[in-house]
Amino acid sequence: MGALKPVLLLLLFALAVAVAAATKEKDPELEQCKHQCRVQQQFDKKRADACIQRCRDYYRQKQGGGGDDDDDEDDLIISLPSERESESQWGSGKEASNNPYVFEHRHFFTGIKTQQGRLQILPKFTDRSPFLRGIENFRFSFLEVEPQSFIIPDHWDAHNVAFVVRGRATIKLVRPEPQGRESFNVQQGDIFRIRAGTTAYMINRDDNQKLLIAKILQPVSVPGHFEAFFAAGGENPESFFRSFSQDILQAAFNTRKETLTRVFGEQKQGMILKASREQIRAMSSDEEESGDSNNSFNIFRQRPTTSNQYGQLYEVDSRDFKQLQDLDVAVSVANVTKGAMTAPVYNSESTKISFVMDGEGYLEVASPQSSVMSEQEQQQQRAQERERRRRGIVAPPSYRRVASGLSPGMVFVVPPGFPYVTVASQKSNLQLLCFEVNAAQSQRFLLAGKKNVLINLEKEAKELAFGIPAREVDEFLKSQQEEFFLRGPQERRSA
Amino acid sequence: MGALKPVLLLLLFALAVAVAAATKEKDPELEQCKHQCRVQQQFDKKRADACIQRCRDYYRQKQGGGGDDDDDEDDLIISLPSERESESQWGSGKEASNNPYVFEHRHFFTGIKTQQGRLQILPKFTDRSPFLRGIENFRFSFLEVEPQSFIIPDHWDAHNVAFVVRGRATIKLVRPEPQGRESFNVQQGDIFRIRAGTTAYMINRDDNQKLLIAKILQPVSVPGHFEAFFAAGGENPESFFRSFSQDILQAAFNTRKETLTRVFGEQKQGMILKASREQIRAMSSDEEESGDSNNSFNIFRQRPTTSNQYGQLYEVDSRDFKQLQDLDVAVSVANVTKGAMTAPVYNSESTKISFVMDGEGYLEVASPQSSVMSEQEQQQQRAQERERRRRGIVAPPSYRRVASGLSPGMVFVVPPGFPYVTVASQKSNLQLLCFEVNAAQSQRFLLAGKKNVLINLEKEAKELAFGIPAREVDEFLKSQQEEFFLRGPQERRSA
Amino acid sequence: MGALKPVLLLLLFALAVAVAAATKEKDPELEQCKHQCRVQQQFDKKRADACIQRCRDYYRQKQGGGGDDDDDEDDLIISLPSERESESQWGSGKEASNNPYVFEHRHFFTGIKTQQGRLQILPKFTDRSPFLRGIENFRFSFLEVEPQSFIIPDHWDAHNVAFVVRGRATIKLVRPEPQGRESFNVQQGDIFRIRAGTTAYMINRDDNQKLLIAKILQPVSVPGHFEAFFAAGGENPESFFRSFSQDILQAAFNTRKETLTRVFGEQKQGMILKASREQIRAMSSDEEESGDSNNSFNIFRQRPTTSNQYGQLYEVDSRDFKQLQDLDVAVSVANVTKGAMTAPVYNSESTKISFVMDGEGYLEVASPQSSVMSEQEQQQQRAQERERRRRGIVAPPSYRRVASGLSPGMVFVVPPGFPYVTVASQKSNLQLLCFEVNAAQSQRFLLAGKKNVLINLEKEAKELAFGIPAREVDEFLKSQQEEFFLRGPQERRSA
Repeated sequence: MGALKPVLLLLLFALAVAVAAATKEKDPELEQCKHQCRVQQQFDKKRADACIQRCRDYYRQKQGGGGDDDDDEDDLIISLPSERESESQWGSGKEASNNPYVFEHRHFFTGIKTQQGRLQILPKFTDRSPFLRGIENFRFSFLEVEPQSFIIPDHWDAHNVAFVVRGRATIKLVRPEPQGRESFNVQQGDIFRIRAGTTAYMINRDDNQKLLIAKILQPVSVPGHFEAFFAAGGENPESFFRSFSQDILQAAFNTRKETLTRVFGEQKQGMILKASREQIRAMSSDEEESGDSNNSFNIFRQRPTTSNQYGQLYEVDSRDFKQLQDLDVAVSVANVTKGAMTAPVYNSESTKISFVMDGEGYLEVASPQSSVMSEQEQQQQRAQERERRRRGIVAPPSYRRVASGLSPGMVFVVPPGFPYVTVASQKSNLQLLCFEVNAAQSQRFLLAGKKNVLINLEKEAKELAFGIPAREVDEFLKSQQEEFFLRGPQERRSA
Repeated sequence: MGALKPVLLLLLFALAVAVAAATKEKDPELEQCKHQCRVQQQFDKKRADACIQRCRDYYRQKQGGGGDDDDDEDDLIISLPSERESESQWGSGKEASNNPYVFEHRHFFTGIKTQQGRLQILPKFTDRSPFLRGIENFRFSFLEVEPQSFIIPDHWDAHNVAFVVRGRATIKLVRPEPQGRESFNVQQGDIFRIRAGTTAYMINRDDNQKLLIAKILQPVSVPGHFEAFFAAGGENPESFFRSFSQDILQAAFNTRKETLTRVFGEQKQGMILKASREQIRAMSSDEEESGDSNNSFNIFRQRPTTSNQYGQLYEVDSRDFKQLQDLDVAVSVANVTKGAMTAPVYNSESTKISFVMDGEGYLEVASPQSSVMSEQEQQQQRAQERERRRRGIVAPPSYRRVASGLSPGMVFVVPPGFPYVTVASQKSNLQLLCFEVNAAQSQRFLLAGKKNVLINLEKEAKELAFGIPAREVDEFLKSQQEEFFLRGPQERRSA
Repeated sequence: MGALKPVLLLLLFALAVAVAAATKEKDPELEQCKHQCRVQQQFDKKRADACIQRCRDYYRQKQGGGGDDDDDEDDLIISLPSERESESQWGSGKEASNNPYVFEHRHFFTGIKTQQGRLQILPKFTDRSPFLRGIENFRFSFLEVEPQSFIIPDHWDAHNVAFVVRGRATIKLVRPEPQGRESFNVQQGDIFRIRAGTTAYMINRDDNQKLLIAKILQPVSVPGHFEAFFAAGGENPESFFRSFSQDILQAAFNTRKETLTRVFGEQKQGMILKASREQIRAMSSDEEESGDSNNSFNIFRQRPTTSNQYGQLYEVDSRDFKQLQDLDVAVSVANVTKGAMTAPVYNSESTKISFVMDGEGYLEVASPQSSVMSEQEQQQQRAQERERRRRGIVAPPSYRRVASGLSPGMVFVVPPGFPYVTVASQKSNLQLLCFEVNAAQSQRFLLAGKKNVLINLEKEAKELAFGIPAREVDEFLKSQQEEFFLRGPQERRSA
């Protein structure tokens, strides 16, 4: 076939162009991408436009087009056939219309919002797909706080592991004696953990810079479900004290009703408040800077575990930062140089929850057919499987591409064993923050480049596995000499 | 608002009285309480009357009325407005009509019942509410045994941790060599654990006193579901041997059918039997008294961890009694002096399963809105949330009061992070037995009194959090000088 | 009753014979057994006939008939009354029509199939019954490979523990440095474990013998759900690389499209291939024979833990083979001599997943009523229970027989606490492979024979529990002097 193929492809391609031109057919993925933008539009016009631009860039990028802005949609359509053709060769390759692994802005809901900031929360992963049950008991949220703000004390029925994406904060933990109050400063790159039930509050102590914190939560009570509790506060946020009976509170605090009315009645500005310079200065910890306390660890303190011209990888696990141990979580930051990519890779046991901190790019995951099916598709499949079992027929494993453009604020999840790649756009570096769940025993298996595990197959295994001479396989596996971070897809037209 | 409010309240109050008087409106909570009593009535008249009395006491107590019995219902209605008014001030405060955290007699079902005793079992917690999934794999049961009784040998597919509420028993554990048969005595206050699968039997060796044992079970097979297996016995309880084929049994025991018919045919008196004085004496262990074996630990052996004129707290965890370790359970007994209360408090990581051993009183839990919703309410809320997300609107966290009268035999559950108080009636001390699940890392956070964690907030945090001068906050927080056990709500009319 | 009974039985028996003869009524169990055979028939005639023969043997055996083949079905029907009568005496004893614990050939589905072999997979246990939630996260599969075969490299998102039932294989594990490639030989009786995500391949290096491997899998991502991933391969098995975009792969491997087409296009023979003698020789490990590496452990290396003329038991746990520890799995092999049986026994905490390696026989499990109910029955029961609770009535625990013929390739599951027996046919030894889940703390409780735990009851307990003189109980318990493996049911007619 190898010989005949090219001709066939040419024909296919010609046909595809014709069809595409005729029907002005749009690529479903692009359309979906744009639709999402329009959804955002209604509350954030500016963002939405940027969003649409990203969709286009993603396509241009994906089709090997440069970042130049004079392209218009038609380019995309013309170049689509290259995609089609590849699909005709590589099996269905149908872009997963029901992608359970990627979360956009529209998927977040706003848990808290005031003049001074907001907390964005991702719904339970299992609300999205049963195939995320592996992280059923984890949630993801993102906090944005204006300069000179105070986040009033509360406690959660969930542990959380937080990463400072940007800004400088002071964290205060209040616990019973002997710990009492602990105070520590954090800055960009710091990881810190707050145990469930700890009364905590926080200050953005910077005069100008926004504070951005990404965190994963692990509820201790109801799997995947957490609650926030405000002791202080009044009407907004409502103090939980207000739901006790008057006489109970009067007895508990040995005080008069008027006092209660005053103490729990005045706070009306919500959970995130403006604080004065003086108040901030007074509360900002006198400790040395971040990362030097037992309470936080800066990921950039250590040298990258992998680094070349195409990117750098920083990793922190429970051996570096004890507080990650009982949750069995690891944290990493990948900085993919513009135009570069990460090698195809999978993690043997950990599930990766990745957050796009900065830059644009795209993601491809090779996902088992069944794990990207809609409820409907799953039912059909179950029926088919019953039938197959009855007739003793076998459906070989097959895979489907999960692809998505990436932009700041997006989250994607990669289950253990799933091979994936990320690609940075030609315009900017792609910065990813990853929380790895079930990390302790997990290993990273590289599938291309210098440490490609397939190189370790012996000669006969290569022959038998690929059905071609081992020499050819070796040539193929060794032509990529870089490790982990690789040169990305280049400009190329398929015709 | 602080200024205007009082007038408003007065008006509201007047109105409420008028309405209440006019419609002779009953408080839903009181009505519910009474209804439950009537349900009981059908099989236990005497108990039911006591029950209704408790409902009234609860109200009188709750409204600040004394324990005097000449009050009649009208008092309650008249005094309700104080409740109403407080609610008008403290947000909805609607008594949770769908309280998933309190279990009354009517919620138990009877697992075993004979002349000599019965075993009461609480259904799976998750049958009641999805918000109890944190203790999905624990069950609660209560055993009552007449004097001079024998409970025939069986084994369960669940671990259990038992507490002797009253009486004196001898416990026998039968296991394969090397352990063989172990025998130990237990008495009031003893905690003991029986591993899943252990063949065990028990004697109430007291001539006059009933034996009362409360226990939690942790199934080892199906989460939240357990089974009892009787090897001995015959027709009632049915020996599981009877479900094997005849020829199998004859071969297994190398015996004749007639013998089988005899051995597994005679026992017809059920699981709990009357035993003769001689039999009891013969079986009662010769060991020293309870608490001195590795098999049990007496909670009253140690000094209370907290004690004052308002109550005492006794606590046992896995450091005291190794056998609690793998289940990560702790046990505590709180004795709240009549008219006293426990300070508002929450546990950071543990879920508390509390059993009322003696006395009357009431409970209030500050519960996040969502966690006390009926299925219907939850669906509505999910719909609203979807809508909110679409429109980017935020619903701040809010809380609802879960309140209930407490009387002997009732069970209540408090999830981690949920603040709660218990109050003893003016008539009698309130004695609570608590099993804490997920106890190892959990800490107790006091919210009022001497060790109130809020005292640890710094000056500026207090100002910002409460929106009033720090001085006022301190005054408020420090006017209660007692710790944990406090003077309860006193007689007081709201008007 | 003991006295009157025999007469009654005789009458019952006569009646039963009459009815049976008249209606030519067939035993439902036998019919079910035969039906299953017919189902198989369509793809494996020879096997099906053997199957039907087994059904008959099972019955002859069960009715005490010898293995002689001149019996025909009518014998079975005539002898059924003995069964009936026993039931009339021993409560319903209705054979569980809805047996959730036994899996026949028809329950497996074929995950992979080529000229050279196939992988049979059992569906999720919980698809069968909610009462198997205890092993929700385990799956069972069985691999059959022709001589001189190569199984191409893949990785799974599940740990697996494998046992070589027959044949000689070489296993290759490929992991990132420092481990790199590990290679070891295995043979009959070897246990080995492959961690989730490890790229592994395998050779049946024997020139003539089939390779048979039984394994349990523990998924690391979605409980009870696992996926296989092929890096190598091409069209069949499909390489997951084919679901990445062309431009991505070209960049990742720094190669040309034509190369990709070639490398991932040639393999079309499926997952299990014929390999040449030379290739096999080249790949067969030079290490010493199996069981001497850290990667595998031979169960027959140690002396049996129990052994007599009626059978032998071999056991391996995590103390013998470290790699079983984190999964908390133990493995055992029981060889029940023809005509012999295992004593009634239960495991205190572990669930047993048993696979019939060879021989015929049958199984009886004493199962709590509720745990063998159909969905329908369960609903009815729930309704009844609600009603009972309302009326305070008690349903004593009762048991139902789960019985089944056993033949090679069948799987049965015994939950913790469930008493069971297995019996070997008169024709051949019964060889069982057992994977025990949750094994660490579990103990085996023997219910008959020398180490019968009931012997440890004291005199009074025996009297009270059985309602007959202790002397009689002792006589009964001690007449069987063998341990664990016992002489099986002998030829006997009930009339």
